[in-house]
Amino acid sequence: MTLQENIKNNIIDVIDFPKQGVSYKDITPIFQNPELCAEILKAMKTTYISQHIEAIVGLESRGFMFGFSLAVALEVPFILIRKKGKLPRATYSTNYALEYGNATIEMHNDAIHKGQRVLIHDDVLATGGTAAAAANLIQQAGGTIAGFHFLVELSFLNGRTALGNFNADISTFASY
Amino acid sequence: MTLQENIKNNIIDVIDFPKQGVSYKDITPIFQNPELCAEILKAMKTTYISQHIEAIVGLESRGFMFGFSLAVALEVPFILIRKKGKLPRATYSTNYALEYGNATIEMHNDAIHKGQRVLIHDDVLATGGTAAAAANLIQQAGGTIAGFHFLVELSFLNGRTALGNFNADISTFASY
Repeated sequence: MTLQENIKNNIIDVIDFPKQGVSYKDITPIFQNPELCAEILKAMKTTYISQHIEAIVGLESRGFMFGFSLAVALEVPFILIRKKGKLPRATYSTNYALEYGNATIEMHNDAIHKGQRVLIHDDVLATGGTAAAAANLIQQAGGTIAGFHFLVELSFLNGRTALGNFNADISTFASY
Repeated sequence: MTLQENIKNNIIDVIDFPKQGVSYKDITPIFQNPELCAEILKAMKTTYISQHIEAIVGLESRGFMFGFSLAVALEVPFILIRKKGKLPRATYSTNYALEYGNATIEMHNDAIHKGQRVLIHDDVLATGGTAAAAANLIQQAGGTIAGFHFLVELSFLNGRTALGNFNADISTFASY
């Protein structure tokens, strides 16, 4: 079985969540499968070990699991990008459009230094709005975006187009 | 330097966050220190390797980092307890009191099986309200609470008293 097949076998489609007409990819069974988690982490490490990654940013909250574990494996800092109001000190902040309304995410001002090569990780690449906002935060801090990593990609939502401006590698393990 | 000293050296006190009169322990610098993270994970693994832990629950969202990494290290399932409305399938749910108002957390119905020995992990033990609510969810599912683990304990808030009813081991690495 390929890694993609194994990942897809551990995702449950939930119809009409969070609203009617949407088919939500529930990835929580992946975290309950320790053999698969070990395999994913090994593949992430193999992908990034020679790419001079100097920090990993994880997006709240499902980007915190594999993002942090990869940071530990690569022995680099892990930086939290969180929803508005959660980080207690001075932050960079960016507002971005959701399908309905807006959202704001934040990163501590001192989390990244100028020129630092940062990998952005989240669980699922959908429209790319949140990941693009994260890239914006890293650029505000003067960091360099080394790439984007997602476990899963919903290619029909064209997230790669939204991230194309950042001129960085986009890696995913399973694609729909 | 002891692990406790190292952890405390990587915590920033933020005065008047999230509201006036509160001194907030900002633990985000811990995650930016890969040597310390490796040391913490090693200590967690040493603590739990022989305790027959069969699953680890992490509390959204700062319990997701070390909770998941420990689950990978112990080769057991990692289960997400999330804020209301985030988990897409049928859940157990519990409402608990905060200092002002209430909060609800949820866990998927099928995440834990009867009798499974579950460790609950979060970053900080304060009043113990959230961890007690998590224990309630595990009991709803028929699971056994093997213990609680927190990086940091604010002992003056008496969280251990709130968790005492669950008759489980409480382990923390740094105490204020």
